[in-house]
Amino acid sequence: MTTHQPLAIALVGAGRMGSFHAETLAHRLPGVRLAAVADPAPGAARRLADRLGCPTAHTEIGELLADPAVDAVVIATPARTHAGLVEAAARAGKAVYCEKPMAVTLAEADRAVAAAAEAGTVLQVGFNRRYDPGFRAAHEKIAAGAIGTPQLLRSLTRDPKLADPARIPPWTIFLETLIHDFDTLRFLNPGAEPVEVFAWADALIRPDFKDRGLLDTAMVTIRFGDGALATAEASFQAVYGYDVRGEVLGSAGMLTTGDLRRTHLTAYGPDGIAAECVAYDQDLFHDAYIAELADFADSVRTAGTPSVTGEDARAALVIALAAIRSVETGGPVRISDIEGDADAGIKGRTDLPDGEMMGMSNSSLSPI
Amino acid sequence: MTTHQPLAIALVGAGRMGSFHAETLAHRLPGVRLAAVADPAPGAARRLADRLGCPTAHTEIGELLADPAVDAVVIATPARTHAGLVEAAARAGKAVYCEKPMAVTLAEADRAVAAAAEAGTVLQVGFNRRYDPGFRAAHEKIAAGAIGTPQLLRSLTRDPKLADPARIPPWTIFLETLIHDFDTLRFLNPGAEPVEVFAWADALIRPDFKDRGLLDTAMVTIRFGDGALATAEASFQAVYGYDVRGEVLGSAGMLTTGDLRRTHLTAYGPDGIAAECVAYDQDLFHDAYIAELADFADSVRTAGTPSVTGEDARAALVIALAAIRSVETGGPVRISDIEGDADAGIKGRTDLPDGEMMGMSNSSLSPI
Amino acid sequence: MTTHQPLAIALVGAGRMGSFHAETLAHRLPGVRLAAVADPAPGAARRLADRLGCPTAHTEIGELLADPAVDAVVIATPARTHAGLVEAAARAGKAVYCEKPMAVTLAEADRAVAAAAEAGTVLQVGFNRRYDPGFRAAHEKIAAGAIGTPQLLRSLTRDPKLADPARIPPWTIFLETLIHDFDTLRFLNPGAEPVEVFAWADALIRPDFKDRGLLDTAMVTIRFGDGALATAEASFQAVYGYDVRGEVLGSAGMLTTGDLRRTHLTAYGPDGIAAECVAYDQDLFHDAYIAELADFADSVRTAGTPSVTGEDARAALVIALAAIRSVETGGPVRISDIEGDADAGIKGRTDLPDGEMMGMSNSSLSPI
Amino acid sequence: MTTHQPLAIALVGAGRMGSFHAETLAHRLPGVRLAAVADPAPGAARRLADRLGCPTAHTEIGELLADPAVDAVVIATPARTHAGLVEAAARAGKAVYCEKPMAVTLAEADRAVAAAAEAGTVLQVGFNRRYDPGFRAAHEKIAAGAIGTPQLLRSLTRDPKLADPARIPPWTIFLETLIHDFDTLRFLNPGAEPVEVFAWADALIRPDFKDRGLLDTAMVTIRFGDGALATAEASFQAVYGYDVRGEVLGSAGMLTTGDLRRTHLTAYGPDGIAAECVAYDQDLFHDAYIAELADFADSVRTAGTPSVTGEDARAALVIALAAIRSVETGGPVRISDIEGDADAGIKGRTDLPDGEMMGMSNSSLSPI
Repeated sequence: MTTHQPLAIALVGAGRMGSFHAETLAHRLPGVRLAAVADPAPGAARRLADRLGCPTAHTEIGELLADPAVDAVVIATPARTHAGLVEAAARAGKAVYCEKPMAVTLAEADRAVAAAAEAGTVLQVGFNRRYDPGFRAAHEKIAAGAIGTPQLLRSLTRDPKLADPARIPPWTIFLETLIHDFDTLRFLNPGAEPVEVFAWADALIRPDFKDRGLLDTAMVTIRFGDGALATAEASFQAVYGYDVRGEVLGSAGMLTTGDLRRTHLTAYGPDGIAAECVAYDQDLFHDAYIAELADFADSVRTAGTPSVTGEDARAALVIALAAIRSVETGGPVRISDIEGDADAGIKGRTDLPDGEMMGMSNSSLSPI
Repeated sequence: MTTHQPLAIALVGAGRMGSFHAETLAHRLPGVRLAAVADPAPGAARRLADRLGCPTAHTEIGELLADPAVDAVVIATPARTHAGLVEAAARAGKAVYCEKPMAVTLAEADRAVAAAAEAGTVLQVGFNRRYDPGFRAAHEKIAAGAIGTPQLLRSLTRDPKLADPARIPPWTIFLETLIHDFDTLRFLNPGAEPVEVFAWADALIRPDFKDRGLLDTAMVTIRFGDGALATAEASFQAVYGYDVRGEVLGSAGMLTTGDLRRTHLTAYGPDGIAAECVAYDQDLFHDAYIAELADFADSVRTAGTPSVTGEDARAALVIALAAIRSVETGGPVRISDIEGDADAGIKGRTDLPDGEMMGMSNSSLSPI
Repeated sequence: MTTHQPLAIALVGAGRMGSFHAETLAHRLPGVRLAAVADPAPGAARRLADRLGCPTAHTEIGELLADPAVDAVVIATPARTHAGLVEAAARAGKAVYCEKPMAVTLAEADRAVAAAAEAGTVLQVGFNRRYDPGFRAAHEKIAAGAIGTPQLLRSLTRDPKLADPARIPPWTIFLETLIHDFDTLRFLNPGAEPVEVFAWADALIRPDFKDRGLLDTAMVTIRFGDGALATAEASFQAVYGYDVRGEVLGSAGMLTTGDLRRTHLTAYGPDGIAAECVAYDQDLFHDAYIAELADFADSVRTAGTPSVTGEDARAALVIALAAIRSVETGGPVRISDIEGDADAGIKGRTDLPDGEMMGMSNSSLSPI
Repeated sequence: MTTHQPLAIALVGAGRMGSFHAETLAHRLPGVRLAAVADPAPGAARRLADRLGCPTAHTEIGELLADPAVDAVVIATPARTHAGLVEAAARAGKAVYCEKPMAVTLAEADRAVAAAAEAGTVLQVGFNRRYDPGFRAAHEKIAAGAIGTPQLLRSLTRDPKLADPARIPPWTIFLETLIHDFDTLRFLNPGAEPVEVFAWADALIRPDFKDRGLLDTAMVTIRFGDGALATAEASFQAVYGYDVRGEVLGSAGMLTTGDLRRTHLTAYGPDGIAAECVAYDQDLFHDAYIAELADFADSVRTAGTPSVTGEDARAALVIALAAIRSVETGGPVRISDIEGDADAGIKGRTDLPDGEMMGMSNSSLSPI
């Protein structure tokens, strides 16, 4: 018989993505148990905990962080709360897995990274595409030189449905959706870093919300230090499904990754060829979502470094902030200008609304 | 907290496929626990049980079946032992999941089915393709009439490597490999049953073993009662990987299913376009293997009927026996001639070797 | 300026396929001119000739064959007339391109081949798939050993629509449709020859015509002398379009060929992924139909051997006759039994109807 | 017999693309004859004319334009000579087909368009992708509203090999390569026009030529008046082959087009799945190149409007000029700023080298 105690991981934020992570912690990872659930919404943590056979539920996250039986926490709350929770959890000595974005200002990103470093705890961020077999294989081939030097890159994210434009905080398309693509582009051009960003964004899906600041479609161009040119594009509504793809042209070849098909069934009828599309991120990245928490558990057990660090989260945030500034100014923005601006970020300029955010792009969903 | 006791499922046969099933029972199914492992090979059950945190290991299967704490058993032993174990387990009041083939003679197939019926226990057989999303969607579309009446069907299985031809029992290609395709063809032509079978088989991969009775390549043609014509083909060695595909032409359209690609990564280089193939059944059918045991657990809990019954196993066996007789006689064989032959089967004509069999096609692997 | 006289090629049979060939001869082949058109139907030859700027039209083929200005003829008449026309044209000293099947009995196939040999003229047969880039590349790779020794082969033909079952001569599915697949299988297993054939055929599309002898769906299994096992399947109606595919598993790899898509446009909408299918043989094989006549012209100019000979036509016919006998007898048929039967063929057993035949499979269409 | 005189079309520029067009005129278009060839290089016109059986060759283009027997001309000379030749030919009363780009400054584009309008002659430009079945079907579906309002577009061109960087004129990547993509994006967003352009370009393939002004890789972002955002990207060297693709996300669906495969043959071996890529534009667009000249001949015969007009050529040029200015200034450029600048263009700032240019992207090849 195994004699090890299972790792006790708690969930903070019982929304859509948090619930998926909680099931993973409860059932899908050998040697891991779901130790507690916290969510400020009355009854939310309790309902999820009960469903998964977890004994402990909190409405006060402070109680959860104070529990010495909790080894680590998974943070799946709204984006603007992430950095503060990372800091608090790290100070409480917990290993931390945080959904993206880890922070929405450079200053709080730096504080979160520093807190984890000081506490000596693991800090991992939810860039799940790094755990997708296709994207991972692309990264590994590129890192091994299989396509030579990257020259032209593309990463895109399209969510299937824009449900309620009134509930989408400003700059969400950069901070919550394209942040994945910014990380992906760094992942697919290993060793290089972006130096300049140009972005356009608009309300093309719901132009009636444009005057309220909605940006639902965006195209970002990025120049890397090694000369490579990249595009990141996002849409909040692709009626055919959930669409995440990447492409890298290098001096010795090209790689493409991303799969739009739900199954390998193809139908041929009088109207031609037909196949079904992936409808949800939790279908497309089902295994990747589990793999990233498995990696987290391994890192905690071995005090190792996870595949996606706080530094990676900060680097993607810098690109997002540059893209936001490019939209604001109408011109290209140098990464060094963002880096040199201690106040870079969206805090102060805009308030994020309370309540649940858009359900796409595995954004954290529930208030805390 | 949940108040239900987890379902106690034991494994019989600690080989390659048994180990996969044991991990599923131990870790991947909510509300299920791996209750015991039995294998006659010294130490085999104990090693697997220890690795998975299971307290109980047996070298005597009788002890396992006598344990009242065991609710159900998963049988993953060599093929010739299946039917007897199903019978014994059913008589002991256990629900039974049995790897394919459930039996190698009609008489023992009938006894196994009867024993489960008398005991009123669930009997499920390991035709995992019925749990693959693509094959399942194909079945559902056909059953719903999406392609009209099936006319031409194809199912194929190709294993990646023929390791040791000396250890392959006679007729394995029909009883252990094509038995999947025979079930798949029935699954993809719901409501119809085969009436006639013609088969050729040969030792094309290892002609040096032909005189020892090796059949490593086979092509079977089947005529159904509704007129539909089908082929089932198998090879023990496709150097590119593990290849399982299906195709159905109906009066109103065609469906194809099966995926040769390991990931959705595609590489383009000076030599053209390249992608990786699936190498192992446990990659291709990873989720299907879990889904079939989840279905088994559900059937046991609800006393329901699983998606693959003992009758299905018997029907596929009849086709396999007809194909074998077709190879022996050189002509087509009517299903009714097999049905009318109480002694139909391979027992008596040929001995299966002891010891572990070929590792392909998720055949049961370990001796008992 | 070029000083060579253009090659004068005449068309016999102004039906659907003949018209396509006439356009090719008139416009698409440098150094070739359409010299004359012959068709017994009043006005048919004249109309086609006028449309293409060809000066000469005949209703008597004898006149055309007697014209010393005609270097070569393309025969695109109904199948039962082919062999006689080949013989007559060869005796008249013309090079001959004949649509498939070159003959419907072994005796007339032998006479046609002998006549061309005696006259020393080129005799080419319309197995256009040998000129399709995909099938041709498959052949070349296999011939070069790229996939080792062929073990399992498949070739299929599905026409898009069964227009008028009353006008389809008996055995058409073998003699006019599957004859392509029989040639393709020989092409894809170069150096080997079939030794045994087993076939089933039925009226599954129009069962109401079964008692009038319609066979609209067929599945043929072929064993080659090198042990390779092959299937050839055909359907007169695949509602999604014109479907021609091939697959070869060899000891060192697999090749697949055949393309169902009309263009490379893919559409993604709320119902998933969609693409259009190829609807007509003249779309799918447009370039191949031109390439085979270009090869014919080259062979005539250089007195060379074309890529598809009268011997190839005879070899495919033998397989078709074996398949027909297999359907008649219900058992497998050895090729040597057909070869040893001077009377093998369909003449005498069944009369082909007069008038235009089914338009699929580039069968010759117009009466003569 | 046909009584019409064939249309007499002459070729100007006997380079790589000109030779292809000459063959089309000589052999592939019913009712068209190659009337003359002109090229200033000694012997070039004569050699091509002789090969194709064309009686007339000139080294002085003035002679060709003065020939009253010539109905129309195809201009396939180096880019900087196009506009002047269009003007001269139109003034001589000839219908004109001109390879892209039709002009390299706005002023000469305007003069060329005006000359054709004054002469009342057909003026067509060589944006061949409009004649590709996939791109054309995409256009038609979009125009018909099949995917709603276009929101995100992509067009790319990658040539297979950068042969001699020293011979590539400055700005070629915009004026000769991306000019195709600029037209394609307008074609795929019918009714909308670009309003702003941002571009980056670099020497990533041959950085050793960067200081000589080589730009071999470019990424252009375009904002349309209807809000749609587009990227156009180009590379002079994709080692896997010739790569031209398009993608349009609209409010009601997505379309993708472009095909990298040379044939439909797929190979599966120990290293996985493999297929060949298209190597040359004349393979990928073989039929489109013929179709555009067929359209030209039809337009001339019927005095109709071709599918690609001088106005289309001017509109694509404006985007190219905006992209060039964006690279020069480092910021986005408004289309209206180019339109308002009578001197916009590359003349005066840079001299195009004499002699043959890079052979990619069906640029005109031979000197005149």
